Amino acid sequence: MQWQDEIKAAQSRIAGHVVETPILRSNAFGRDITLKLEQMQHTGSFKTRGAVNTLLASDVPEAGVVAASGGNHGAAVAYAARQLGHRARIFVPEMAGPAKIGLIKRTGADLTVVPGEYANALELAQREAEESGAMQIHAYDAPLTVAGQGTVMLEWEEQGLDADTVLIAVGGGGLIGGALAWLAGRRKVVAVEPMTSCALHEALTAGTAVDVPVSGIAANALGARRIGEICFDLASVNGVDSVLVSDSAIIDAQQALWQAHRQLVEPAGATALAALMSGAYTPAKGERVAVLVCGGNIAPEPVIALR
Amino acid sequence: MQWQDEIKAAQSRIAGHVVETPILRSNAFGRDITLKLEQMQHTGSFKTRGAVNTLLASDVPEAGVVAASGGNHGAAVAYAARQLGHRARIFVPEMAGPAKIGLIKRTGADLTVVPGEYANALELAQREAEESGAMQIHAYDAPLTVAGQGTVMLEWEEQGLDADTVLIAVGGGGLIGGALAWLAGRRKVVAVEPMTSCALHEALTAGTAVDVPVSGIAANALGARRIGEICFDLASVNGVDSVLVSDSAIIDAQQALWQAHRQLVEPAGATALAALMSGAYTPAKGERVAVLVCGGNIAPEPVIALR
Repeated sequence: MQWQDEIKAAQSRIAGHVVETPILRSNAFGRDITLKLEQMQHTGSFKTRGAVNTLLASDVPEAGVVAASGGNHGAAVAYAARQLGHRARIFVPEMAGPAKIGLIKRTGADLTVVPGEYANALELAQREAEESGAMQIHAYDAPLTVAGQGTVMLEWEEQGLDADTVLIAVGGGGLIGGALAWLAGRRKVVAVEPMTSCALHEALTAGTAVDVPVSGIAANALGARRIGEICFDLASVNGVDSVLVSDSAIIDAQQALWQAHRQLVEPAGATALAALMSGAYTPAKGERVAVLVCGGNIAPEPVIALR
Repeated sequence: MQWQDEIKAAQSRIAGHVVETPILRSNAFGRDITLKLEQMQHTGSFKTRGAVNTLLASDVPEAGVVAASGGNHGAAVAYAARQLGHRARIFVPEMAGPAKIGLIKRTGADLTVVPGEYANALELAQREAEESGAMQIHAYDAPLTVAGQGTVMLEWEEQGLDADTVLIAVGGGGLIGGALAWLAGRRKVVAVEPMTSCALHEALTAGTAVDVPVSGIAANALGARRIGEICFDLASVNGVDSVLVSDSAIIDAQQALWQAHRQLVEPAGATALAALMSGAYTPAKGERVAVLVCGGNIAPEPVIALR
């Protein structure tokens, strides 16, 4: 796989359909760092990049697309489908929560909320795809998805990224896979996972992808039962530092992002910063650190109303 | 007054003490626009620029500084004083609300919440300044304050501002005064005020600054009883378009900022965008428009917690 070419092609494809997300330099978190605010992306997470790239690079059938999702991927597929004129059917588990379910509903996609966990939603999505002929879009373990997410890092470098090390939260590995693919070892990548959902960490320990239990406050975004094969291969080839953070460290980072810069993000969006703030990752002296803020779909949604 | 020099001097002075706030290009609000996200500034509003500039350019007495404020200016003065090692005493009216009061408390400033309206807080602040010898910092009608706020526009131009027209919310006129002073007629400036707090609009109509009633959802940030003389003079010399928006248009803009880009801002922070979205300001064909998002201290503060 010529990842550099794939990611450049993805960037050309999705231009005009995605937000070039801003960069923030901050000294509010204990040291001078750079953050990329990817939660400002359409639908509130990086997932829109992979979804748009997949739809534009594929021969989408008349029956449209199908996706199973903890929430953010489903919203991204629904959004991309609507923008590009395709039908979308999305399956989410109840744990997606009302904020993400509401977000998907607003796109006008055909939405099914499935009792139980993500695996149940995935099963229904697969059956739906087989029966209807619709194209299923995997949330993270597909080359077009990974290439789309890789555009975050390409874009960041074009914006002048000045860092030795990039901290990235990991669920199924689509985002960090794209980053590893683009960077190809040119910068250090730190994979940050919740202690209670750490499919990459366990895979690196075991030497192969393994099933892990998932729970905790970031589970509806980072709670992949098994790391994607694409991500695992890229991590094995390029190398990655793996660190874990507690739910309380994630909440501390969410609160710090709000108090310092009025950025309100979901737990997954604050997970990479949590590694720095909690000391789970301690940079060397002089090491220039960048943090990717990946999602903003917090629950409950904030109240905006008359006093 | 050599405003260009004053604003350049302010920028040099406050560098390292303020956030270089990010730029966002968006087509989510009905047309392609550029936004400056100044609510990411320390203490959640542009006010920190003027406060830091004033403290650094002044011989601050041992007794420290005093400020009366609807909330944002008080938080900025408290923050600047703490950063620079001065004592601060802040007077806010009850209408500042618990979110802004909490924000000021967290800086460690000596805070007095005054029953009634802003004028009562101002009276107490003046008395305190006279009795203690502390330096009073006006929220908007002082040259160092206006020069500090003017650095927003200087910084924006250095970031490559590509716009014919800039929309800015107006309260007492410190921010737009700084913008008018820096731009000196080089770009069109649109002053956006709530219908229920429109001191600049009424002054432009009357040909002189006049007292106006203030109310509505943005009143604790934009509810100046009378426009500052500095702003009024700059508006008279450089020219300004004046438009008004309703509270419901402001709420619509707040909701749009959250839904499109996960930016949660206070009513004042969405007021400039409200003019564009509501049609209160309608750009000409091809006119390139920029919107300044000026404050993020929404009440109630968002909930960040375990599920």
